[in-house]
Amino acid sequence: MSSKGTLIVISGPSGSGKGTVVKSLMEMMPDLGFSVSATTRAPREGEVDGRDYFFISRDDFEEMIEDGDILEYTTYCGNYYGTPKKEAERITGEGRDLILEIEVDGASQVKKKFPGAVTVMLIPPSLSVLEERLRGRGTESDEVIKKRLERACEEIKLAYDYDYVVVNENGGVEACARKIKRIINAERSRSARMTETVDNFINR
Amino acid sequence: MSSKGTLIVISGPSGSGKGTVVKSLMEMMPDLGFSVSATTRAPREGEVDGRDYFFISRDDFEEMIEDGDILEYTTYCGNYYGTPKKEAERITGEGRDLILEIEVDGASQVKKKFPGAVTVMLIPPSLSVLEERLRGRGTESDEVIKKRLERACEEIKLAYDYDYVVVNENGGVEACARKIKRIINAERSRSARMTETVDNFINR
Repeated sequence: MSSKGTLIVISGPSGSGKGTVVKSLMEMMPDLGFSVSATTRAPREGEVDGRDYFFISRDDFEEMIEDGDILEYTTYCGNYYGTPKKEAERITGEGRDLILEIEVDGASQVKKKFPGAVTVMLIPPSLSVLEERLRGRGTESDEVIKKRLERACEEIKLAYDYDYVVVNENGGVEACARKIKRIINAERSRSARMTETVDNFINR
Repeated sequence: MSSKGTLIVISGPSGSGKGTVVKSLMEMMPDLGFSVSATTRAPREGEVDGRDYFFISRDDFEEMIEDGDILEYTTYCGNYYGTPKKEAERITGEGRDLILEIEVDGASQVKKKFPGAVTVMLIPPSLSVLEERLRGRGTESDEVIKKRLERACEEIKLAYDYDYVVVNENGGVEACARKIKRIINAERSRSARMTETVDNFINR
């Protein structure tokens, strides 16, 4: 991918609210590109194919991995989640910053492949709030919730591999999105991204 | 210095307007600490000792260097400019982020001593605007202005050693200060500075 668009990875454990925060962020920054992930899990109520996820079969997903058509992927509760390479190329090819909302271990993959990527981990304010949120969904069994809580804590251990950590307080989706907006704006002033202006002085 | 306050270095060539921008920034973010530099140059009209600079003698400055009482220093047009270590320790000791407004080569010294420091280089929008600004002051001879322009371009070559580059447009002091404010706020979400929240999950 040859482009000036920056890859911005938003991640966080289940219950961090990354989906809602990214939605709010996209409304605040309509110039951002958004990459829709592919998954083999079944759609939840209200989810739309091609908007929330590309819902595809396990066979198709594995074929895409083999063909190198997946930028990063992870398995979660028995399902694949990943970013179609074509999607990412389409958006950064337009020179736009691209938001990737992905699972925690996928973020590490992207950072390794693209050291210039900016990675943000969203975390819940506390363990008890996280448990409340997972129970509040009412869609999973106690056993699944316990597994998710344990996995969340394992994932948060990776926070120090990320560039930024942002807490998503209860009822604070917009404040959280604004914080990420500030991070993206600040990152646009990174010296490595100011080459056009700086080189005017250097090459006078 | 043992403190959680971050060292924020604002620098830029003569004519970048760093003094005015830092003043505006301090008004926007009164929680920031500000370190007054020491210099051996004569005060300009309106400048106040202890507010704009500590105006001290060459002998005193050299004694402070020898005694290790200067955090970083530079010579510029025959005069010393530097940060009294005591000033920096006083402010970071209070746990506050500290703004250091210093000369360009001083910033590199600080970054070497404190890799956690955040460095911002202010640059003028163009070479011609820079020349206008330097002439506008009306205090220096043509020869001095020519020297300053050349030095400014040499200094801007160091921009890629800085974390951030911010352009100070004509009439845009506040916009420029707001940009730095965003950078400082974003830096407060760096994962390395979120240890308190993250460790609550890790050490549960």
